[in-house]
Amino acid sequence: MNIQAPRGTYDVLPDQSAKWQEVEQKINDLCRLYQYKEIRTPIFEHTELFQRGVGDTTDIVQKEMYTFQDRGDRSLTLRPEGTASVVRSYVENKLFGMPDQPVKLFYTGPMFRYERPQAGRMRQFVQFGVEAIGSKDPAIDAEVISLAMEVYRSVGLKQLRLVINSLGDTESRIAHKEALIKHFEPSINEFCNDCQTRLEKNPLRILDCKVDRNHPLMATAPSLTDYLNEESRAYFDEVQSYLSSMDIEFVVDPNLVRGLDYYNHTAFEIMSDAEGFGAITTLAGGGRYNGLVEDLGGPDAPGIGFAMSIERLLLALEMEKVVIGQSNNLEVYVVAMDESTKKKAFAVVRDLRVNGISADMDFTARKVKAQMKSADRKGAAFVIVIGDTELESGKVKLKEMATGEQQEMSFDEIAATLLKKKSLEE
Amino acid sequence: MNIQAPRGTYDVLPDQSAKWQEVEQKINDLCRLYQYKEIRTPIFEHTELFQRGVGDTTDIVQKEMYTFQDRGDRSLTLRPEGTASVVRSYVENKLFGMPDQPVKLFYTGPMFRYERPQAGRMRQFVQFGVEAIGSKDPAIDAEVISLAMEVYRSVGLKQLRLVINSLGDTESRIAHKEALIKHFEPSINEFCNDCQTRLEKNPLRILDCKVDRNHPLMATAPSLTDYLNEESRAYFDEVQSYLSSMDIEFVVDPNLVRGLDYYNHTAFEIMSDAEGFGAITTLAGGGRYNGLVEDLGGPDAPGIGFAMSIERLLLALEMEKVVIGQSNNLEVYVVAMDESTKKKAFAVVRDLRVNGISADMDFTARKVKAQMKSADRKGAAFVIVIGDTELESGKVKLKEMATGEQQEMSFDEIAATLLKKKSLEE
Repeated sequence: MNIQAPRGTYDVLPDQSAKWQEVEQKINDLCRLYQYKEIRTPIFEHTELFQRGVGDTTDIVQKEMYTFQDRGDRSLTLRPEGTASVVRSYVENKLFGMPDQPVKLFYTGPMFRYERPQAGRMRQFVQFGVEAIGSKDPAIDAEVISLAMEVYRSVGLKQLRLVINSLGDTESRIAHKEALIKHFEPSINEFCNDCQTRLEKNPLRILDCKVDRNHPLMATAPSLTDYLNEESRAYFDEVQSYLSSMDIEFVVDPNLVRGLDYYNHTAFEIMSDAEGFGAITTLAGGGRYNGLVEDLGGPDAPGIGFAMSIERLLLALEMEKVVIGQSNNLEVYVVAMDESTKKKAFAVVRDLRVNGISADMDFTARKVKAQMKSADRKGAAFVIVIGDTELESGKVKLKEMATGEQQEMSFDEIAATLLKKKSLEE
Repeated sequence: MNIQAPRGTYDVLPDQSAKWQEVEQKINDLCRLYQYKEIRTPIFEHTELFQRGVGDTTDIVQKEMYTFQDRGDRSLTLRPEGTASVVRSYVENKLFGMPDQPVKLFYTGPMFRYERPQAGRMRQFVQFGVEAIGSKDPAIDAEVISLAMEVYRSVGLKQLRLVINSLGDTESRIAHKEALIKHFEPSINEFCNDCQTRLEKNPLRILDCKVDRNHPLMATAPSLTDYLNEESRAYFDEVQSYLSSMDIEFVVDPNLVRGLDYYNHTAFEIMSDAEGFGAITTLAGGGRYNGLVEDLGGPDAPGIGFAMSIERLLLALEMEKVVIGQSNNLEVYVVAMDESTKKKAFAVVRDLRVNGISADMDFTARKVKAQMKSADRKGAAFVIVIGDTELESGKVKLKEMATGEQQEMSFDEIAATLLKKKSLEE
């Protein structure tokens, strides 16, 4: 009997979880500054939501979803991304009726895609994402992009590259689609089966194909940029102008199309340029999705958002050699000389905790020396040893580990003394 | 087209999420004081883990699991509880080899059980839980129980009832099991089919039966308490003595058996006594599970833990009329008089955020009056209006909403002024 975590999943162990907590804390703080409020949607949704909201022709829906029947014979799917769920919730809970639009939302949580596991690509992975629904102001596009960049900046990442593009409005996209069909149709037999299907359903998807990426017709394919109508071009110009006003550097890449069906106008990705980052350099991606809310049964509310992988953010930190989540937090370790003094040690630990001081002790009947080693490994700032002498005299010595300094006091002075030391430090 | 959240699941909307964040913050803080470190395990596990780790004869495994085949034909199950996964991780990652035992862990996250949804019982629900693995010291049982109680105290709950029991060690349980068989066997035909199976497999489970709960033999069934051997009784006495030493009130209930197979020695539940709480009053439950680590392929490491439902904690807060998560956090709303001043407003918002001040503005081209209303609804502490006059003079008025007081300054003094006000308040 030896059960392991399922393939493509992993445990975040105690020595790593402080990093996750720090990243999430920074995300929460930034979202407060930017006034994005948290939303939490279920881990699974009706399968139809993703077929409709992510797109039937995407790799995600066609190949990568964890879909199953529940005991009531509903087809459910573990969410492969966050936007469809947030939009579903915006519609179902009638958030479009709230007086303050756009509704600015964020989420952090696990997503699921059945792919070949590799560094930076797990089957269960965690995404932080935001959605601003109910505005088609280029300023909100710039705000959303700047928030993504700020998250990376706040954790200490520097080697980033922001790539943007415009996918235009419906009119522009239809014009471009026709040009793409004209371009690929004569030679479509040289492409994979998937691409042949894509030609009819969604030729834009061909540009995303991993199989045919090196076909010569890929490089010469008509660029969406050349088919943007005036309105789309003006919108894109404004987004760029807002980004520049914030001194956010970016590159326009006409080939950036994003892997989801629902994007239009602004699309963007943030990559890591850190050395050794590996094949998958995309840290975050997002874009505008005017029309999606309507597709999912709501009013014509335009939206924009992004999602970033926390695993890749942590990987990027490693590559850039930025260390986070290292704060040591055990304040006091209480050593009991023997069983007879243990109850007193337990009471002291309890008293410290009630006073907001972190404290710990031994629960495995170890000898004093072993307990001292434990205090050391746990990085305790102070140690108190309780033996018969201390019990009899009613006095203990508080030892500061960094200096070796000792201070004698009665049992009921310990918490107060430590609280005083803490307030002096702050 | 109208897709809703799956039955038994729900969205935490922005007006509710602050409560969740506050509860989680308090949990994180308390776990730091008690030195429990976070662990994060996958949402799904191999089905076998729960069959083995929760128990084949439990309702959870028999009736309530979300089990499915993945695309690689593995049988996977959405975790119905947290302990099995944490123990699996303790074994797989060889945490038993760490020098400091017990390993004290906590987790917070969604769990899944296919049950009939009702208030306080959803199909996806969130549990906070802790596990202390590697000690069989009664003091750690008391510590674990006290941590659970502290969580409720820290959020402001008062009407709580702690119920404890001992399920004894293996010897005691075998003696009790034999007595139970003797008690039920002659009349087992009067019981439901499930109970008839339980009689052979695990007669203790009969006491848990929802169908036969009113059968007269239930009330007269032999109590485990009468079959505890000396060691088990001494252990239980020590746990009680530690609890009393912390002034934690409790009731011993010999009928408390818990719905999972793996418990022995200490078992406990915390109930809400708040009026109107409804049929399900259990807020948290836990107990000792010596033997489980070995069952899952690890060494003979004893463990104890608990899990609490965050939904029920929030429900209890409601019933006790305790309000949390109400902190208002928008510091500045910047009003742009028209399109021509909007870029300046955007720049001011940006500048404030970069300086750690939360700020927001309009993104839907609304008139000044509508923007002012929005500032009001969002509870902005300060408002700045930017029109042509301000652009020309280079000076703005910072208006404090609570007092109506206005202060004039140049654009680049806004952030510094607000930061100074904030530091004076702290």
